Amino acid sequence: MPVGTLATVKGVSPNQLRGTGAEMILANTYHLLLQPGERVVEDAGGLHDFMGWDKPILTDSGGFQVFSLSKLNRINDEGVSFRNPRDGSTIQLTPERAIEIQMALGSDIAMAFDQCPPYPATELEVEEACNRTHAWLQRCVDAHKKKQQALFGIIQGGCFPHLREKSARIVSDFNLPGIAIGGVSVGEPLDQMHNIVRQVSPLLPEHLPKYLMGIGTFREMAIAVANGIDLFDCVIPTRLGRHGTALVRNERWNLRNASFRTDHTSLDQTCVCETCLNHSKAYLHHLIRSEELLGLTLVSIHNISNLMRFSKAMTQAIRDGCFSEDFAPWEKDSPARHTW
Amino acid sequence: MPVGTLATVKGVSPNQLRGTGAEMILANTYHLLLQPGERVVEDAGGLHDFMGWDKPILTDSGGFQVFSLSKLNRINDEGVSFRNPRDGSTIQLTPERAIEIQMALGSDIAMAFDQCPPYPATELEVEEACNRTHAWLQRCVDAHKKKQQALFGIIQGGCFPHLREKSARIVSDFNLPGIAIGGVSVGEPLDQMHNIVRQVSPLLPEHLPKYLMGIGTFREMAIAVANGIDLFDCVIPTRLGRHGTALVRNERWNLRNASFRTDHTSLDQTCVCETCLNHSKAYLHHLIRSEELLGLTLVSIHNISNLMRFSKAMTQAIRDGCFSEDFAPWEKDSPARHTW
Repeated sequence: MPVGTLATVKGVSPNQLRGTGAEMILANTYHLLLQPGERVVEDAGGLHDFMGWDKPILTDSGGFQVFSLSKLNRINDEGVSFRNPRDGSTIQLTPERAIEIQMALGSDIAMAFDQCPPYPATELEVEEACNRTHAWLQRCVDAHKKKQQALFGIIQGGCFPHLREKSARIVSDFNLPGIAIGGVSVGEPLDQMHNIVRQVSPLLPEHLPKYLMGIGTFREMAIAVANGIDLFDCVIPTRLGRHGTALVRNERWNLRNASFRTDHTSLDQTCVCETCLNHSKAYLHHLIRSEELLGLTLVSIHNISNLMRFSKAMTQAIRDGCFSEDFAPWEKDSPARHTW
Repeated sequence: MPVGTLATVKGVSPNQLRGTGAEMILANTYHLLLQPGERVVEDAGGLHDFMGWDKPILTDSGGFQVFSLSKLNRINDEGVSFRNPRDGSTIQLTPERAIEIQMALGSDIAMAFDQCPPYPATELEVEEACNRTHAWLQRCVDAHKKKQQALFGIIQGGCFPHLREKSARIVSDFNLPGIAIGGVSVGEPLDQMHNIVRQVSPLLPEHLPKYLMGIGTFREMAIAVANGIDLFDCVIPTRLGRHGTALVRNERWNLRNASFRTDHTSLDQTCVCETCLNHSKAYLHHLIRSEELLGLTLVSIHNISNLMRFSKAMTQAIRDGCFSEDFAPWEKDSPARHTW
């Protein structure tokens, strides 16, 4: 899922986004609560109508941003109070409120309000966050009254296997239509994240869609898919795009580099995105050097297309029965590194 | 012609630009000379291939920018020397060099290198600029060797009717495939500009396309078309777009205004541009308030579409024999103000 924080995947129009092959996108409850506010979106008929995107939308619960972006927050069993960075007012986010906002936003998938501890955190801190997350999940379920919207639970537990195991069991027992592994991509070493995925994934109900939150690089996606993960979200394609860095197969190219100045070939001659079909590296280099908005848009379009193509190649490999051979383990000489 | 200074109409992709109904666009020789340099564009196969635009492109000669942007320029009969703002080096632009660059850029229409005096300027200054412009036009014609590229001459003369008349006669006598009125939109009062158009236009060969440089507001276009002008260029649609101001029929709306926050209708319900078909004023307001790039893009798309629609409505009115009644004079109660 490309990330459309403020009801826009940064720099990319809905038409352009459709062209990348993107299906579901993610929007951020915390940001939309601050601007424009969920009532405006609800009055527009929900996020789909508001932003002109007719495919699925997942909203996070705002919890991750409240904990990571708001330094002046106060947390207790009721919820979290934080200072609105726009006007200094105090906002309280509770499980009930997070669900209310997401119901108003009208996303297809709402996420439970969880407490995501930072990394590193002590075992006691993580255990408390887990207990709160589980109590809050019950309150989210009780508050959720929108049948055409799925509610996903979130597993916490940090890097402590017994806490992860307990959280996986408790969240699974809610029998929700989907389940997420949270508390990853918060600063932990990559192999710790892989260990969490390897440990937790087999504990989850096999038939449920499984979502690994905040992950979106090739290697991590391939390893996670090998362990049964289905859904990802990541800001990397558009964040890199805005910095003029292109994702080309599994490399990152800084398009400001003078070596691209006279390179009149496309970024990737095997890519059929709008950018690669119509524009050369020399043109992208020129736009980025000139600080032209179009450069950021075109590189973002390519980067999203690149991730979508990789995702679809994994899907196809699973169908063709060659995923384990081609994509996992994602080693330097995996065939998929060169052939997808 | 929307303006694509650096081989991009700011914030708008070629696909989006096609959707606005735009035909010919303008690119700036001065800017492209500095970045990326005409050799890069030539190596790409010319501007059309470089920027991915297969419809006509007109390039200006760089003269206007050299005189208006470069404070440290030295002008003599040979040409103009100015300091490269990027690296401090000295660049000389002459009629021969301006044509050479435009031939390398491969535009469909090249403009002669002229001297455009500022406003106000004394009669003597304007007369000298005229004489130089005419001598330079001969050198441009001699230097121009690209048959599939049209060269247009430029009339100068400031606000002095006898100098305008002389310039119109001299430039017309070159029998070029098109002719432009320059030295307007340089700070003179609007009614002076109208007087110039009214005076000069009847002096020009009737069969030639006539281009009024740097003009692009409804009233000025309508008055100019009534006097026989065919071509315009203007940065207004994209410059206003980047500031979050929408051109709606003949008004300008600042979309930051709180009154748009909950307005879920499109900018103009009679407009069929990508922006109006898919997005509300509330969404545009939200994007612009959030400083999202997509806001600038969507407003620019609408603004260009608005100008193109107005231009096409004038063309249709001429064909239908009702232009004089509907569009000219462009008075408060002209039918076209409400019906185009």
